[in-house]
Amino acid sequence: MKNQQDLFVQMALDAWNIQISRTNKLFDSLTDEQLAADVAPGRNSGIYLLGHLAAVHDGMLPLLRFGQKLRPEMEEVFIKNPDKSGLATPPVGELRKYWTTVNEVLASQFSKLSGEEWFERHAAISEEDFAKEPHRNRLNLVMNRTAHLANHLGQLTFLKPRG
Amino acid sequence: MKNQQDLFVQMALDAWNIQISRTNKLFDSLTDEQLAADVAPGRNSGIYLLGHLAAVHDGMLPLLRFGQKLRPEMEEVFIKNPDKSGLATPPVGELRKYWTTVNEVLASQFSKLSGEEWFERHAAISEEDFAKEPHRNRLNLVMNRTAHLANHLGQLTFLKPRG
Repeated sequence: MKNQQDLFVQMALDAWNIQISRTNKLFDSLTDEQLAADVAPGRNSGIYLLGHLAAVHDGMLPLLRFGQKLRPEMEEVFIKNPDKSGLATPPVGELRKYWTTVNEVLASQFSKLSGEEWFERHAAISEEDFAKEPHRNRLNLVMNRTAHLANHLGQLTFLKPRG
Repeated sequence: MKNQQDLFVQMALDAWNIQISRTNKLFDSLTDEQLAADVAPGRNSGIYLLGHLAAVHDGMLPLLRFGQKLRPEMEEVFIKNPDKSGLATPPVGELRKYWTTVNEVLASQFSKLSGEEWFERHAAISEEDFAKEPHRNRLNLVMNRTAHLANHLGQLTFLKPRG
């Protein structure tokens, strides 16, 4: 019988893994050409959203105090600037690899954390504020990013050909 | 200082409330005409997604053992059948009201549950299975529905005029 802390960590990580797995399945099913299309007229392209999600997940590494970002230069293209900014973007194959690698590094780091460590503060909150707001912990950051991923995954499904 | 069980519940309900509040803000900003449009070419209309989300949240009432659905007949139109099925749908004003009311009833019921009660089983799992799979509790159902809402909210944002 797990203790309740471990149980809650499992619930939150299951929710994360479900979204990651659905997104991987979708990306794997799309050709590079399909991924280059806009998800809806005048909206973000699949390639931009792929880069955006990878860059946001890369940003979780320092926020969760796991270390440096793998590719800090991606923030400029895929977070600070919108799609079609005119900035150079890496080839789609490289972005696919970036997405996979970032999530593998996160999964590896996740597996090393104890239940207690999940409830430690994330890096965007000071120790003083965390004492007053203990919900701003590492696990909460993962829950927040799960919703972010679900949000964009709903949009990315529009890249699938209608059956 | 809250106990850790209350902290988990707060984290999961905060995540739910953020998505509900963003969705309400979006629905409130859209006219009935805007809501009648498809979110992307050949995809669901805003009205269908409004009805779908309301019906799915209505289904949480029996699943969380809070009582009967408010409008069980909505399942046929908005869950079992796709958009443009030809089935009669209520006027959009009625659907807006249904969405608001269902979420108010849920919020009222949520506020009555103790931390312990959140970790009790939901109605779709037997007591026998729950003994082996204790993560299939009420709180987990809310986390699952939070991701479902985030998924569709990402699509609904396409109804907003591009600025």
